[in-house]
Amino acid sequence: VPAFVFDLDGTLVDSVYQHVYAWHTAFQRLGYDFPAFLVHRKIGLSGPVLIKAIARELDRPIDDERSAELEAIHASEYAARFSSLRPLPGARELLLTLHSDGVKFSIVTSSGKGDAEKLMALLDLDFDPPMLTKDDMPKQKPDPSGFMEGAKMIGARDVDTIVVGDSVWDVLAAQRARFLGVGLLTGGYGEEELAAAGAFRVYRDPAEMCAKLNELGLEE
Amino acid sequence: VPAFVFDLDGTLVDSVYQHVYAWHTAFQRLGYDFPAFLVHRKIGLSGPVLIKAIARELDRPIDDERSAELEAIHASEYAARFSSLRPLPGARELLLTLHSDGVKFSIVTSSGKGDAEKLMALLDLDFDPPMLTKDDMPKQKPDPSGFMEGAKMIGARDVDTIVVGDSVWDVLAAQRARFLGVGLLTGGYGEEELAAAGAFRVYRDPAEMCAKLNELGLEE
Repeated sequence: VPAFVFDLDGTLVDSVYQHVYAWHTAFQRLGYDFPAFLVHRKIGLSGPVLIKAIARELDRPIDDERSAELEAIHASEYAARFSSLRPLPGARELLLTLHSDGVKFSIVTSSGKGDAEKLMALLDLDFDPPMLTKDDMPKQKPDPSGFMEGAKMIGARDVDTIVVGDSVWDVLAAQRARFLGVGLLTGGYGEEELAAAGAFRVYRDPAEMCAKLNELGLEE
Repeated sequence: VPAFVFDLDGTLVDSVYQHVYAWHTAFQRLGYDFPAFLVHRKIGLSGPVLIKAIARELDRPIDDERSAELEAIHASEYAARFSSLRPLPGARELLLTLHSDGVKFSIVTSSGKGDAEKLMALLDLDFDPPMLTKDDMPKQKPDPSGFMEGAKMIGARDVDTIVVGDSVWDVLAAQRARFLGVGLLTGGYGEEELAAAGAFRVYRDPAEMCAKLNELGLEE
Protein backbone atom coordinates (compact mmCIF):
# COMPACT_ATOMS: atom_id res chain seq x y z
CA VAL A 1 0.00 0.00 0.00
CA PRO A 2 1.47 3.38 -0.95
CA ALA A 3 1.96 6.26 1.47
CA PHE A 4 1.87 9.85 0.29
CA VAL A 5 3.91 12.93 1.06
CA PHE A 6 2.15 16.06 -0.19
CA ASP A 7 3.49 19.45 -1.02
CA LEU A 8 1.06 22.18 0.10
CA ASP A 9 1.27 25.45 -1.92
CA GLY A 10 -0.01 24.91 -5.45
CA THR A 11 -0.72 21.23 -4.71
CA LEU A 12 -3.57 21.41 -2.18
CA VAL A 13 -4.24 25.17 -2.17
CA ASP A 14 -4.20 27.48 -5.23
CA SER A 15 -1.48 29.91 -4.19
CA VAL A 16 1.21 29.80 -6.88
CA TYR A 17 0.21 32.92 -8.81
CA GLN A 18 -0.15 34.93 -5.61
CA HIS A 19 3.43 33.92 -4.78
CA VAL A 20 4.60 34.87 -8.28
CA TYR A 21 2.98 38.26 -7.91
CA ALA A 22 4.39 38.84 -4.42
CA TRP A 23 7.96 37.84 -5.33
CA HIS A 24 7.97 39.73 -8.62
CA THR A 25 6.70 42.85 -6.85
CA ALA A 26 9.41 42.49 -4.19
CA PHE A 27 12.22 42.14 -6.74
CA GLN A 28 10.92 45.02 -8.87
CA ARG A 29 10.59 47.28 -5.85
CA LEU A 30 14.26 46.72 -4.97
CA GLY A 31 15.36 47.36 -8.55
CA TYR A 32 15.80 43.83 -9.86
CA ASP A 33 14.03 43.86 -13.21
CA PHE A 34 13.47 40.51 -14.86
CA PRO A 35 10.51 38.74 -16.47
CA ALA A 36 7.87 37.24 -14.17
CA PHE A 37 8.11 33.77 -15.77
CA LEU A 38 11.55 33.38 -14.18
CA VAL A 39 10.14 33.68 -10.69
CA HIS A 40 7.20 31.42 -11.60
CA ARG A 41 9.69 28.68 -12.41
CA LYS A 42 11.24 29.06 -8.94
CA ILE A 43 8.02 28.88 -6.89
CA GLY A 44 8.10 25.84 -4.64
CA LEU A 45 11.55 26.75 -3.40
CA SER A 46 11.70 28.35 0.04
CA GLY A 47 12.44 32.09 0.18
CA PRO A 48 16.23 32.11 0.65
CA VAL A 49 16.73 29.29 -1.89
CA LEU A 50 14.50 31.06 -4.42
CA ILE A 51 16.40 34.32 -3.95
CA LYS A 52 19.75 32.56 -4.44
CA ALA A 53 18.45 30.87 -7.60
CA ILE A 54 17.31 34.21 -9.05
CA ALA A 55 20.61 35.87 -8.09
CA ARG A 56 22.46 33.09 -9.90
CA GLU A 57 20.25 33.49 -12.97
CA LEU A 58 20.72 37.28 -13.02
CA ASP A 59 24.43 36.80 -12.30
CA ARG A 60 24.03 39.46 -9.63
CA PRO A 61 24.80 38.59 -6.02
CA ILE A 62 22.12 39.43 -3.42
CA ASP A 63 23.46 39.85 0.13
CA ASP A 64 21.69 38.70 3.31
CA GLU A 65 20.30 42.12 4.12
CA ARG A 66 18.70 42.55 0.67
CA SER A 67 17.49 38.97 0.85
CA ALA A 68 15.72 39.70 4.14
CA GLU A 69 14.13 42.82 2.60
CA LEU A 70 12.89 40.77 -0.36
CA GLU A 71 11.42 38.17 1.99
CA ALA A 72 9.67 40.87 4.01
CA ILE A 73 8.07 42.48 0.94
CA HIS A 74 7.04 39.06 -0.38
CA ALA A 75 5.45 38.22 2.98
CA SER A 76 3.40 41.40 3.13
CA GLU A 77 2.31 41.29 -0.55
CA TYR A 78 1.36 37.62 -0.17
CA ALA A 79 -0.57 38.34 3.03
CA ALA A 80 -2.45 41.12 1.24
CA ARG A 81 -3.70 38.56 -1.29
CA PHE A 82 -4.50 35.82 1.19
CA SER A 83 -8.26 36.27 0.82
CA SER A 84 -7.99 35.16 -2.83
CA LEU A 85 -6.59 31.71 -1.90
CA ARG A 86 -8.85 28.71 -2.41
CA PRO A 87 -8.45 24.96 -1.87
CA LEU A 88 -7.71 23.26 -5.19
CA PRO A 89 -10.48 21.17 -6.80
CA GLY A 90 -10.66 17.80 -5.06
CA ALA A 91 -7.96 18.56 -2.48
CA ARG A 92 -10.23 18.14 0.53
CA GLU A 93 -11.94 15.06 -0.96
CA LEU A 94 -8.58 13.45 -1.76
CA LEU A 95 -7.27 13.84 1.80
CA LEU A 96 -10.58 12.70 3.32
CA THR A 97 -10.61 9.64 1.03
CA LEU A 98 -7.06 8.66 2.00
CA HIS A 99 -7.80 9.26 5.67
CA SER A 100 -10.99 7.19 5.71
CA ASP A 101 -9.27 4.40 3.75
CA GLY A 102 -6.48 4.31 6.33
CA VAL A 103 -3.81 5.36 3.81
CA LYS A 104 -0.94 7.17 5.51
CA PHE A 105 0.09 10.63 4.36
CA SER A 106 2.00 13.67 5.55
CA ILE A 107 2.47 17.23 4.31
CA VAL A 108 5.87 18.82 3.71
CA THR A 109 6.01 22.49 2.79
CA SER A 110 8.62 25.17 2.14
CA SER A 111 6.27 27.72 3.69
CA GLY A 112 6.61 28.80 7.30
CA LYS A 113 4.40 27.33 10.03
CA GLY A 114 2.06 30.33 10.22
CA ASP A 115 1.30 30.43 6.49
CA ALA A 116 1.04 26.64 6.30
CA GLU A 117 -1.51 26.52 9.12
CA LYS A 118 -3.63 29.15 7.38
CA LEU A 119 -3.62 27.09 4.17
CA MET A 120 -4.53 23.94 6.10
CA ALA A 121 -7.46 25.79 7.67
CA LEU A 122 -8.82 26.45 4.16
CA LEU A 123 -8.95 22.68 3.61
CA ASP A 124 -11.31 22.43 6.59
CA LEU A 125 -10.28 18.91 7.70
CA ASP A 126 -11.49 17.49 11.02
CA PHE A 127 -8.11 15.91 11.73
CA ASP A 128 -4.51 17.14 11.66
CA PRO A 129 -2.27 15.38 9.16
CA PRO A 130 1.40 15.11 10.18
CA MET A 131 3.13 18.17 8.75
CA LEU A 132 6.67 19.52 8.36
CA THR A 133 7.18 23.19 7.56
CA LYS A 134 10.22 25.20 6.55
CA ASP A 135 11.04 25.75 10.21
CA ASP A 136 11.32 21.98 10.83
CA MET A 137 13.80 21.31 8.03
CA PRO A 138 17.51 22.14 7.96
CA LYS A 139 17.63 21.76 4.15
CA GLN A 140 15.05 22.81 1.60
CA LYS A 141 13.83 21.53 -1.78
CA PRO A 142 15.24 20.45 -4.19
CA ASP A 143 17.17 18.72 -1.37
CA PRO A 144 15.23 15.51 -0.71
CA SER A 145 15.65 15.46 3.08
CA GLY A 146 12.31 17.17 3.83
CA PHE A 147 10.32 14.59 1.86
CA MET A 148 12.40 11.79 3.43
CA GLU A 149 11.63 13.12 6.90
CA GLY A 150 7.95 13.42 5.94
CA ALA A 151 7.90 9.77 4.91
CA LYS A 152 9.68 8.74 8.12
CA MET A 153 7.08 10.59 10.23
CA ILE A 154 4.37 8.25 8.96
CA GLY A 155 6.53 5.13 8.97
CA ALA A 156 6.45 4.78 5.18
CA ARG A 157 8.94 2.49 3.49
CA ASP A 158 10.96 4.04 0.66
CA VAL A 159 9.49 1.68 -1.92
CA ASP A 160 5.95 2.67 -0.92
CA THR A 161 6.37 6.44 -0.86
CA ILE A 162 4.83 8.71 -3.47
CA VAL A 163 5.48 12.46 -3.38
CA VAL A 164 2.69 14.66 -4.78
CA GLY A 165 3.63 18.15 -5.92
CA ASP A 166 2.94 20.83 -8.51
CA SER A 167 6.48 21.86 -9.38
CA VAL A 168 9.52 20.44 -11.08
CA TRP A 169 11.33 20.90 -7.73
CA ASP A 170 8.97 18.46 -6.03
CA VAL A 171 9.46 15.85 -8.72
CA LEU A 172 13.24 16.26 -8.72
CA ALA A 173 13.41 16.01 -4.92
CA ALA A 174 11.18 12.91 -5.03
CA GLN A 175 13.58 11.25 -7.44
CA ARG A 176 16.60 12.16 -5.35
CA ALA A 177 14.88 10.40 -2.42
CA ARG A 178 14.17 7.39 -4.70
CA PHE A 179 10.44 7.97 -4.20
CA LEU A 180 7.93 8.17 -7.02
CA GLY A 181 6.78 11.68 -7.89
CA VAL A 182 3.28 12.61 -9.00
CA GLY A 183 2.93 16.01 -10.71
CA LEU A 184 -0.16 18.21 -10.72
CA LEU A 185 -0.74 20.87 -13.38
CA THR A 186 -2.07 23.29 -10.76
CA GLY A 187 1.31 25.00 -10.39
CA GLY A 188 1.24 26.17 -14.00
CA TYR A 189 3.98 23.86 -15.26
CA GLY A 190 3.11 21.96 -18.41
CA GLU A 191 2.50 18.22 -18.44
CA GLU A 192 5.57 17.61 -20.60
CA GLU A 193 7.74 19.68 -18.25
CA LEU A 194 6.72 17.61 -15.20
CA ALA A 195 7.11 14.38 -17.15
CA ALA A 196 10.57 15.46 -18.33
CA ALA A 197 11.51 16.05 -14.68
CA GLY A 198 10.64 12.41 -14.03
CA ALA A 199 7.03 12.42 -12.82
CA PHE A 200 5.59 8.91 -12.61
CA ARG A 201 2.12 10.28 -13.44
CA VAL A 202 0.80 13.79 -14.11
CA TYR A 203 -2.74 14.79 -13.14
CA ARG A 204 -4.63 17.97 -13.79
CA ASP A 205 -5.51 18.56 -10.12
CA PRO A 206 -6.16 16.67 -6.85
CA ALA A 207 -9.65 15.78 -8.14
CA GLU A 208 -8.21 13.83 -11.07
CA MET A 209 -5.67 12.14 -8.81
CA CYS A 210 -8.49 11.15 -6.43
CA ALA A 211 -10.39 9.58 -9.32
CA LYS A 212 -7.33 7.61 -10.44
CA LEU A 213 -5.88 6.32 -7.16
CA ASN A 214 -5.92 2.83 -8.66
CA GLU A 215 -3.05 3.97 -10.95
CA LEU A 216 -1.02 4.61 -7.81
CA GLY A 217 -1.58 1.19 -6.27
CA LEU A 218 -4.75 1.72 -4.25
CA GLU A 219 -7.53 -0.77 -4.80
CA GLU A 220 -11.05 0.56 -5.25
CA VAL B 1 14.70 36.34 -46.41
CA PRO B 2 12.16 35.70 -43.64
CA ALA B 3 9.56 38.22 -42.52
CA PHE B 4 8.25 38.24 -38.97
CA VAL B 5 4.84 38.67 -37.44
CA PHE B 6 5.13 39.32 -33.70
CA ASP B 7 2.63 38.83 -30.93
CA LEU B 8 2.90 41.67 -28.38
CA ASP B 9 1.77 40.75 -24.82
CA GLY B 10 4.21 38.30 -23.27
CA THR B 11 6.36 38.31 -26.42
CA LEU B 12 7.75 41.85 -26.49
CA VAL B 13 6.44 43.18 -23.15
CA ASP B 14 6.28 41.22 -19.87
CA SER B 15 2.53 41.38 -19.21
CA VAL B 16 1.29 37.79 -18.95
CA TYR B 17 1.19 37.49 -15.17
CA GLN B 18 -0.54 40.86 -14.82
CA HIS B 19 -3.22 39.52 -17.21
CA VAL B 20 -3.49 36.27 -15.22
CA TYR B 21 -3.97 38.25 -12.04
CA ALA B 22 -6.53 40.62 -13.59
CA TRP B 23 -8.61 37.84 -15.17
CA HIS B 24 -8.49 35.59 -12.12
CA THR B 25 -9.58 38.50 -9.92
CA ALA B 26 -12.46 39.28 -12.31
CA PHE B 27 -13.72 35.70 -12.34
CA GLN B 28 -13.40 35.30 -8.57
CA ARG B 29 -15.23 38.56 -7.95
CA LEU B 30 -18.20 37.35 -9.99
CA GLY B 31 -18.25 34.00 -8.20
CA TYR B 32 -16.42 31.78 -10.69
CA ASP B 33 -13.93 29.88 -8.56
CA PHE B 34 -11.29 27.90 -10.43
CA PRO B 35 -7.52 27.57 -10.21
CA ALA B 36 -5.39 30.37 -11.64
CA PHE B 37 -3.36 28.05 -13.87
CA LEU B 38 -6.45 27.55 -16.04
CA VAL B 39 -6.59 31.24 -16.91
CA HIS B 40 -2.82 31.34 -17.41
CA ARG B 41 -3.21 28.71 -20.14
CA LYS B 42 -5.78 30.95 -21.90
CA ILE B 43 -3.73 34.18 -21.94
CA GLY B 44 -3.05 35.24 -25.51
CA LEU B 45 -6.68 34.79 -26.44
CA SER B 46 -8.71 38.00 -26.72
CA GLY B 47 -11.20 38.71 -23.91
CA PRO B 48 -14.41 37.23 -25.35
CA VAL B 49 -12.61 34.14 -26.68
CA LEU B 50 -10.85 33.61 -23.35
CA ILE B 51 -14.14 33.91 -21.47
CA LYS B 52 -15.82 31.39 -23.79
CA ALA B 53 -12.92 28.98 -23.35
CA ILE B 54 -13.17 29.21 -19.55
CA ALA B 55 -16.97 28.80 -19.66
CA ARG B 56 -16.50 25.65 -21.75
CA GLU B 57 -13.92 24.31 -19.33
CA LEU B 58 -16.14 25.02 -16.31
CA ASP B 59 -19.13 23.67 -18.23
CA ARG B 60 -20.98 26.76 -17.10
CA PRO B 61 -22.35 29.18 -19.72
CA ILE B 62 -21.45 32.86 -19.34
CA ASP B 63 -23.88 35.26 -21.02
CA ASP B 64 -22.94 38.48 -22.83
CA GLU B 65 -23.75 40.74 -19.91
CA ARG B 66 -21.55 38.77 -17.47
CA SER B 67 -18.88 38.57 -20.13
CA ALA B 68 -18.87 42.37 -20.44
CA GLU B 69 -18.62 42.68 -16.64
CA LEU B 70 -15.66 40.32 -16.60
CA GLU B 71 -13.95 42.31 -19.34
CA ALA B 72 -14.52 45.55 -17.44
CA ILE B 73 -13.03 44.21 -14.19
CA HIS B 74 -10.08 42.73 -16.10
CA ALA B 75 -9.47 46.08 -17.81
CA SER B 76 -9.42 48.05 -14.56
CA GLU B 77 -7.31 45.49 -12.64
CA TYR B 78 -4.85 45.33 -15.54
CA ALA B 79 -4.68 49.12 -15.78
CA ALA B 80 -3.96 49.29 -12.04
CA ARG B 81 -0.87 47.13 -12.62
CA PHE B 82 0.33 48.88 -15.76
CA SER B 83 3.26 50.54 -13.98
CA SER B 84 4.78 47.09 -13.34
CA LEU B 85 5.03 46.27 -17.07
CA ARG B 86 8.50 46.16 -18.61
CA PRO B 87 9.86 45.44 -22.09
CA LEU B 88 11.16 41.88 -22.25
CA PRO B 89 14.95 41.37 -22.36
CA GLY B 90 16.19 42.03 -25.88
CA ALA B 91 12.78 43.03 -27.30
CA ARG B 92 13.86 46.53 -28.27
CA GLU B 93 17.24 45.33 -29.59
CA LEU B 94 15.58 42.62 -31.66
CA LEU B 95 13.18 45.02 -33.37
CA LEU B 96 15.93 47.61 -33.94
CA THR B 97 18.18 44.93 -35.43
CA LEU B 98 15.49 43.74 -37.83
CA HIS B 99 14.62 47.31 -38.76
CA SER B 100 18.18 48.36 -39.45
CA ASP B 101 18.81 45.16 -41.44
CA GLY B 102 15.76 45.91 -43.60
CA VAL B 103 13.91 42.78 -42.45
CA LYS B 104 10.15 43.24 -42.65
CA PHE B 105 7.99 42.69 -39.58
CA SER B 106 4.57 43.52 -38.22
CA ILE B 107 2.84 43.19 -34.86
CA VAL B 108 -0.49 41.45 -34.37
CA THR B 109 -2.12 41.57 -30.95
CA SER B 110 -5.34 40.43 -29.27
CA SER B 111 -5.19 43.54 -27.09
CA GLY B 112 -7.17 46.64 -27.94
CA LYS B 113 -5.56 49.61 -29.69
CA GLY B 114 -5.21 51.70 -26.51
CA ASP B 115 -3.43 49.01 -24.50
CA ALA B 116 -1.29 48.00 -27.49
CA GLU B 117 -0.09 51.56 -28.02
CA LYS B 118 0.89 51.86 -24.36
CA LEU B 119 2.94 48.65 -24.64
CA MET B 120 4.60 49.87 -27.83
CA ALA B 121 5.55 53.11 -26.05
CA LEU B 122 7.46 51.03 -23.48
CA LEU B 123 9.60 49.65 -26.31
CA ASP B 124 10.67 53.21 -27.11
CA LEU B 125 11.21 52.74 -30.85
CA ASP B 126 11.81 55.70 -33.15
CA PHE B 127 9.63 54.23 -35.89
CA ASP B 128 6.12 52.72 -35.98
CA PRO B 129 6.02 49.08 -37.06
CA PRO B 130 2.85 48.06 -38.94
CA MET B 131 0.40 46.80 -36.30
CA LEU B 132 -2.99 45.09 -36.15
CA THR B 133 -4.94 45.14 -32.91
CA LYS B 134 -8.07 43.30 -31.77
CA ASP B 135 -10.19 46.10 -33.24
CA ASP B 136 -8.76 45.49 -36.73
CA MET B 137 -9.52 41.77 -36.83
CA PRO B 138 -12.90 40.10 -37.31
CA LYS B 139 -11.59 36.79 -35.93
CA GLN B 140 -9.19 36.20 -33.09
CA LYS B 141 -6.49 33.66 -32.22
CA PRO B 142 -6.33 30.68 -32.47
CA ASP B 143 -7.93 31.63 -35.82
CA PRO B 144 -4.98 32.30 -38.15
CA SER B 145 -6.54 35.23 -40.06
CA GLY B 146 -4.93 37.92 -37.88
CA PHE B 147 -1.43 36.61 -38.48
CA MET B 148 -2.22 36.15 -42.19
CA GLU B 149 -3.37 39.76 -42.41
CA GLY B 150 -0.25 40.84 -40.52
CA ALA B 151 1.91 39.07 -43.10
CA LYS B 152 -0.05 40.60 -45.97
CA MET B 153 0.46 44.10 -44.55
CA ILE B 154 4.20 43.77 -45.03
CA GLY B 155 3.99 41.91 -48.32
CA ALA B 156 5.48 38.72 -46.88
CA ARG B 157 5.14 35.48 -48.82
CA ASP B 158 3.66 32.53 -46.90
CA VAL B 159 6.84 30.53 -47.21
CA ASP B 160 8.89 33.34 -45.73
CA THR B 161 6.68 34.18 -42.75
CA ILE B 162 7.64 33.36 -39.17
CA VAL B 163 5.24 34.09 -36.32
CA VAL B 164 6.85 34.87 -32.95
CA GLY B 165 4.75 34.37 -29.84
CA ASP B 166 4.83 33.25 -26.22
CA SER B 167 1.74 31.06 -26.12
CA VAL B 168 0.55 27.77 -27.51
CA TRP B 169 -2.23 29.79 -29.24
CA ASP B 170 0.33 31.73 -31.27
CA VAL B 171 2.10 28.57 -32.38
CA LEU B 172 -1.17 26.82 -33.26
CA ALA B 173 -2.41 29.82 -35.24
CA ALA B 174 0.94 30.02 -37.03
CA GLN B 175 0.61 26.41 -38.11
CA ARG B 176 -2.94 26.89 -39.28
CA ALA B 177 -1.65 29.72 -41.51
CA ARG B 178 1.15 27.39 -42.74
CA PHE B 179 3.71 29.79 -41.27
CA LEU B 180 6.54 28.74 -39.01
CA GLY B 181 6.03 29.50 -35.34
CA VAL B 182 8.76 30.53 -32.92
CA GLY B 183 7.91 30.18 -29.22
CA LEU B 184 9.35 32.26 -26.38
CA LEU B 185 9.37 31.03 -22.78
CA THR B 186 8.39 34.49 -21.53
CA GLY B 187 4.70 33.56 -21.36
CA GLY B 188 5.35 30.91 -18.74
CA TYR B 189 4.69 27.92 -20.97
CA GLY B 190 7.34 25.22 -20.84
CA GLU B 191 9.70 24.54 -23.73
CA GLU B 192 8.21 21.07 -24.27
CA GLU B 193 4.68 22.50 -24.33
CA LEU B 194 5.54 24.99 -27.08
CA ALA B 195 7.46 22.34 -29.01
CA ALA B 196 4.50 19.94 -28.71
CA ALA B 197 2.27 22.66 -30.19
CA GLY B 198 4.56 22.68 -33.21
CA ALA B 199 7.07 25.46 -32.58
CA PHE B 200 9.90 25.44 -35.10
CA ARG B 201 12.29 26.82 -32.49
CA VAL B 202 11.84 27.83 -28.84
CA TYR B 203 13.89 30.63 -27.29
CA ARG B 204 14.06 31.85 -23.74
CA ASP B 205 13.29 35.48 -24.63
CA PRO B 206 13.69 38.03 -27.46
CA ALA B 207 17.36 38.44 -26.49
CA GLU B 208 18.11 34.79 -27.25
CA MET B 209 16.16 34.98 -30.50
CA CYS B 210 18.14 38.09 -31.47
CA ALA B 211 21.39 36.21 -30.85
CA LYS B 212 20.27 33.27 -32.97
CA LEU B 213 18.67 34.93 -36.00
CA ASN B 214 20.89 32.76 -38.18
CA GLU B 215 18.78 29.76 -37.16
CA LEU B 216 15.79 31.55 -38.71
CA GLY B 217 17.41 32.21 -42.05
CA LEU B 218 19.06 35.57 -41.49
CA GLU B 219 22.72 35.85 -42.38
CA GLU B 220 25.03 37.54 -39.94
